[in-house]
Amino acid sequence: MEWIQKEIYISNKIRGFHLITDEILFNLPELTKIKKGILQVFIKHTSASLTINENADSTVRSDFEAHFNEMVPENQPYYQHTIEGLDDMPAHLKSSILGSSIQAPITGGSLNLGTWQGIYLCEHRNHSDSRKLVLTAWGEGYQ
Amino acid sequence: MEWIQKEIYISNKIRGFHLITDEILFNLPELTKIKKGILQVFIKHTSASLTINENADSTVRSDFEAHFNEMVPENQPYYQHTIEGLDDMPAHLKSSILGSSIQAPITGGSLNLGTWQGIYLCEHRNHSDSRKLVLTAWGEGYQ
Amino acid sequence: MEWIQKEIYISNKIRGFHLITDEILFNLPELTKIKKGILQVFIKHTSASLTINENADSTVRSDFEAHFNEMVPENQPYYQHTIEGLDDMPAHLKSSILGSSIQAPITGGSLNLGTWQGIYLCEHRNHSDSRKLVLTAWGEGYQ
Repeated sequence: MEWIQKEIYISNKIRGFHLITDEILFNLPELTKIKKGILQVFIKHTSASLTINENADSTVRSDFEAHFNEMVPENQPYYQHTIEGLDDMPAHLKSSILGSSIQAPITGGSLNLGTWQGIYLCEHRNHSDSRKLVLTAWGEGYQ
Repeated sequence: MEWIQKEIYISNKIRGFHLITDEILFNLPELTKIKKGILQVFIKHTSASLTINENADSTVRSDFEAHFNEMVPENQPYYQHTIEGLDDMPAHLKSSILGSSIQAPITGGSLNLGTWQGIYLCEHRNHSDSRKLVLTAWGEGYQ
Repeated sequence: MEWIQKEIYISNKIRGFHLITDEILFNLPELTKIKKGILQVFIKHTSASLTINENADSTVRSDFEAHFNEMVPENQPYYQHTIEGLDDMPAHLKSSILGSSIQAPITGGSLNLGTWQGIYLCEHRNHSDSRKLVLTAWGEGYQ
């Protein structure tokens, strides 16, 4: 049984959806030790989130930003939590709709995503610091 | 390798979003045995859900209720599943949008959430009984 | 410690929400070996998704299709990623809102879902091939 766990920082990004698969994998050379297992990526924030989606055409990511701004608009009359800025309450909502973690299988020493899948960091604030992630991988090792 | 699994009941709550982090942790004194691992909280219902979000200002939680009622309204003309009440079909939809489980890292014997993160029980029905959760934690132990 | 991992294909389905619990379990006779554990079902695509919801009345599943088409409409003026068809960009968005995996507890050799819970394959494209899933189960075994 192999266990890998580390915290990493992702440098601050502009509001929107960003592919971070390569950055995650760069931090996990130990995945090669795992024959069958799972990787979890967890974000320790409530105004940014993680999801898995299309890794090729950048307009998919800009359309995500456009649609989430429609589905979870700023300035709704029913928002009471407004002291941290117009973008704050929508950021919390988007974060729960998309989720604070992704889990994906590890097979034969590699992350077993589909050909067109990548990991997105979804930055919902206009301005943010770097974001802290916890990477946890576990599985049956080669011996 | 440590494995902890138990079923607990959360007493019935009014419709809305409720912080249950302390109640979860109260039921898991065994987490101190886990050096690196994962906690899953799973809800055995389809009209209530779980998510991770801001643990401080209660208006965040009331804004969640307000926004989810806008995004998934009652009384839509296209609903066919209406026999269990106006709040039932929206409850099923909200439940899948938010999800029936949360997974979070355990590090050094504690749940490794961000400073502002807490676990929400999201009660989508007007009236419900207590809700049954399955808590499962696993990880590398101290020996 | 038990580890089970396999890839399966789900034959192509019409656009909509489909119960696949029985098909998943049919492929996992080895679950009986796990006393306490977790099953993950992961979909290797970005225009179909997985969720857990009500397993009885089929109108719940048709109402899911109707509501998701309202909440994530086709033909929005802000979509730029349109070359793969009107249903493509909404499919990507629905896929991230619902998620690309489900995780559920295994207890006493069986999947520990609530009475009314089932696993849905959510097909968001008008036409698709079969969908590839990775099933991964791990847990404490009986010895």
